[in-house]
Amino acid sequence: MSKQEIRKELKVSAIENGTVIDHIPAQSVFQVISILGLDHIPNQIMIGTNLESRKLKKKGIIKVSNKYFESEEINKIALVAPTATLIVIKDYTVVYKAKVEVPDSINKIVKCINPNCITNNEDIPTLFSVINKEDLLLNCHYCEKTTKKSNMRFI
Amino acid sequence: MSKQEIRKELKVSAIENGTVIDHIPAQSVFQVISILGLDHIPNQIMIGTNLESRKLKKKGIIKVSNKYFESEEINKIALVAPTATLIVIKDYTVVYKAKVEVPDSINKIVKCINPNCITNNEDIPTLFSVINKEDLLLNCHYCEKTTKKSNMRFI
Repeated sequence: MSKQEIRKELKVSAIENGTVIDHIPAQSVFQVISILGLDHIPNQIMIGTNLESRKLKKKGIIKVSNKYFESEEINKIALVAPTATLIVIKDYTVVYKAKVEVPDSINKIVKCINPNCITNNEDIPTLFSVINKEDLLLNCHYCEKTTKKSNMRFI
Repeated sequence: MSKQEIRKELKVSAIENGTVIDHIPAQSVFQVISILGLDHIPNQIMIGTNLESRKLKKKGIIKVSNKYFESEEINKIALVAPTATLIVIKDYTVVYKAKVEVPDSINKIVKCINPNCITNNEDIPTLFSVINKEDLLLNCHYCEKTTKKSNMRFI
């Protein structure tokens, strides 16, 4: 491969400024894209999925140029991809790197499973206590029903 | 950047065997993924979107390892991404390259817009004549209603 070709490949894979979400379980890659709305932004995005990984069986990686995520967005990532690592890049250099963490409480971003819950009928943001971080279980502050990972819907 | 790092980047971006779909209009990248079911296969996939392009304003590229598309799948690509180029790679070498083309007739893959059409009520595959390839217009062989790009739904 010529130097020019190598440079062309690099241009596609490295990012100058932005955020890399690494170690996403492969089956959650497109869910992460959808909950963060990455399919509707003008930023350059690189996505790899079903890649070999030492830590996970198969991992995915998402690189978004010129985008830095807010804490609410990082919490969404933690809920669907709890193994993910967040890497912030400035001028091709890693300036921040951390494993995402499921917080103790979840505000606004998840829908309560109970159709009769006040949050599904009035203009009240949802609020949950996380009662199990491994095998995700959210307990609604208002109706006390439990929402689990398999029926978690994002707002 | 060290040689080792360059190699790591290359590993992520080059494919040994498989298909590259290049020159996808950026806004159609995730639609191409969805109509081809690439979000549900175990193959390694690399996706880039909102990349600079000479031909298009913003383009997307999808590289799928160890996957070669059938003509029906290529027709689907042509319908949502008529500017796309299909490149087949074997042993890191381009063995086939062509611009996708909207065919003269479309069989099975698109739903007829008319809810009363026989294809929506009985087990009959749809069939359309393509009456405009630029500004996509499909004419149903059975009910003669016209389905346009903005209300095209895939089966």
